[in-house]
Amino acid sequence: MTNERREKIELVLGKRQNDITVVLENVFDPHNISAVMRSCDAVGVQEIYVLTTKIPRHKKWGERSSSSAAKWLTIHQFDNTEACFFQLRKKYTSVLTTHLSTDAISLYDLDLSRTVALVFGNEHEGVSNEIRALADGNFIIPQVGMIRSLNISVACAVSLYEAFRQKQAAGHYAGQKLGAEEYQMLSNQWGITNEKEK
Amino acid sequence: MTNERREKIELVLGKRQNDITVVLENVFDPHNISAVMRSCDAVGVQEIYVLTTKIPRHKKWGERSSSSAAKWLTIHQFDNTEACFFQLRKKYTSVLTTHLSTDAISLYDLDLSRTVALVFGNEHEGVSNEIRALADGNFIIPQVGMIRSLNISVACAVSLYEAFRQKQAAGHYAGQKLGAEEYQMLSNQWGITNEKEK
Repeated sequence: MTNERREKIELVLGKRQNDITVVLENVFDPHNISAVMRSCDAVGVQEIYVLTTKIPRHKKWGERSSSSAAKWLTIHQFDNTEACFFQLRKKYTSVLTTHLSTDAISLYDLDLSRTVALVFGNEHEGVSNEIRALADGNFIIPQVGMIRSLNISVACAVSLYEAFRQKQAAGHYAGQKLGAEEYQMLSNQWGITNEKEK
Repeated sequence: MTNERREKIELVLGKRQNDITVVLENVFDPHNISAVMRSCDAVGVQEIYVLTTKIPRHKKWGERSSSSAAKWLTIHQFDNTEACFFQLRKKYTSVLTTHLSTDAISLYDLDLSRTVALVFGNEHEGVSNEIRALADGNFIIPQVGMIRSLNISVACAVSLYEAFRQKQAAGHYAGQKLGAEEYQMLSNQWGITNEKEK
């Protein structure tokens, strides 16, 4: 591993966030999942929850090559909603869904500098009633056009970048946020310690 | 046309913006163009410039069905850069490119409540040097991940929604912005007057 590579990894790990995640509920298009993962990586979201209760469990995330965002994320897969929420609730005090309902508030009225899990639903049916009942609130991305549906990868990117903007303003990218243990584990996974041991 | 439909069209036209546009330079993937158009429609960007100097002119935008964003946008096609910029400069005082260069400023440091054209480049080569030389500045979407490239449709959506956020805060969606002539022309195109005449 070159010094440049090591420095890049340390820079990236130094900006990974431990208080925001994305949950994908029965999202089935691999291109959408892949695009969501790229957005997560881009804004420093380290972990993602992939819940499949109505579709088959996803088998692969590309080939986990260096150019695949999946290689740089911690991916939790569940096919049971309760188990998924049990894990989620250990780390995230607020779980928010994106569902086109009248009781939704605007993305831009959320405080995304707080601990939060953002849930995006299936391409056709959106977030299920079951998940909405378990969540703490619901938000929408405002739209003023003739066509009222954004692709899920676009919706997720817009949401994550609004979180990025708020978190950056709140200083969340100014210093390491991962705990020492998680930092070390990821650092090992990404090849830094292995290289040192050679 | 139902009253509901007419009201929706009037609501949408009442929020269309006359001071922001998107320029696509040699973007070739129809899915990307289609996704960009949906984002434009969603935030009220009425017109889009499609410049093709190195790839064939695009022939179709879906079938311009009601569910296609292209039906609700004013699309200007050019295969000559000078002609494109001549038209652009008539309406937009600032033209900004998105190119991964060191002199770029962050999207979040832009004032997007002012008159602006945002240029996105070809999927592989980005914005050309020719266009960068003609533009007034260059911005980047900040990224802190291992993979440093966002899909153009994601980059465009994130940029347009930051513009939306700023413009909304500045009151740009509070009242009609289109000039009376353009409003009437679009209203006709979208079927309102035709229906009245029956």
